Amino acid sequence: MENQMIPDIIISRLPIYLRALRHMQDMGKFTTSSQELGVVVGISAAQIRKDLSQFGEFGKQGTGYDIAFLIGQLREILKVERVWDVAVVGMGDMGHALARYQGFSDRGFRVALVFDNDPAKIGAQVGNFVVRDMHEIVGAIRNSGIRLAMLCVPAQVAQEVTDLLVEAGVKAILNYAPISLSVPAGIRVQYLDPSIGLQRMTYYMD
Amino acid sequence: MENQMIPDIIISRLPIYLRALRHMQDMGKFTTSSQELGVVVGISAAQIRKDLSQFGEFGKQGTGYDIAFLIGQLREILKVERVWDVAVVGMGDMGHALARYQGFSDRGFRVALVFDNDPAKIGAQVGNFVVRDMHEIVGAIRNSGIRLAMLCVPAQVAQEVTDLLVEAGVKAILNYAPISLSVPAGIRVQYLDPSIGLQRMTYYMD
Repeated sequence: MENQMIPDIIISRLPIYLRALRHMQDMGKFTTSSQELGVVVGISAAQIRKDLSQFGEFGKQGTGYDIAFLIGQLREILKVERVWDVAVVGMGDMGHALARYQGFSDRGFRVALVFDNDPAKIGAQVGNFVVRDMHEIVGAIRNSGIRLAMLCVPAQVAQEVTDLLVEAGVKAILNYAPISLSVPAGIRVQYLDPSIGLQRMTYYMD
Repeated sequence: MENQMIPDIIISRLPIYLRALRHMQDMGKFTTSSQELGVVVGISAAQIRKDLSQFGEFGKQGTGYDIAFLIGQLREILKVERVWDVAVVGMGDMGHALARYQGFSDRGFRVALVFDNDPAKIGAQVGNFVVRDMHEIVGAIRNSGIRLAMLCVPAQVAQEVTDLLVEAGVKAILNYAPISLSVPAGIRVQYLDPSIGLQRMTYYMD
């Protein structure tokens, strides 16, 4: 499979399809159509067919998609048929929430290390984890081989911590700090900023 | 200004530009270029110029963009020159984090009501708020005129709560529950699902 040329925008939709298919499966469904999936995710059936056709022939004319098969294919394409260890950096409210979040387990991820720089938090238990000292972050992440991190530190220190994560070998950062991060080529950043999510909707309001 | 025909994908990038420009302003800068902005946000200069040109002529050939002016224009386009009241529903870890989040104040939003259905939480203080009973949600939101909500309830009840929010007059939902929501035409949903964010990056990893 030659993936190099597939636009980011298509890749960004695949996890949405995967989540909706998992939900259909949980509801006891075995097959679906691009029309039905389109209604659930709010994307046109034609777009869904076009997106999926980039990766092969997953549906049959007239019978639609086998949900379990398509889930398996999408998990493989997105590389979440395995489980990735993730570091959480910053044990404020948001880091706390992520360290205890129950939604990762069957989606391909597992929180494996949590960090903070506050002496009052270092060594404390959060969910199943003991908070590690931020000063150990480069060594600890390097030793563990972790390449994914969720960044929940204040905006003022987010870039500095990002530089440490990159130094430690992290290749993908989910950024909760309300700031755009500078990273070298080859490092990915996704932003989960609630203000951005809200601002994407107010445009449409009266 | 005729906004009806502008693609969602362009609208979705404007808050990213706005955040980056605010950051430049905080750093003491007065002007920028599409090239410089492009490096910060990871979007090509040509795309940025094309996106902004949908709304008017904001930059000058040779001198670039006046940051304060462009911030003002973007805030107006996105309708965040005003402050929107937002309801937070579900006072688990994530709702807790959002109710106490300091990053909304200068981005156009203010948490105004928080809800939970747990008798142990109702009436308790979270940040500046007293947790209200979920059973009052339709009346309370309707009386307040709130049209934005952040949904942080468990996946199993997310659709049911969404239906109540829609009944209460909410027009835009920021969804933290790991499930696709069904909403009537005219209601907007944005998803902040950490697994989706991570899955959008693992595709690119070795």
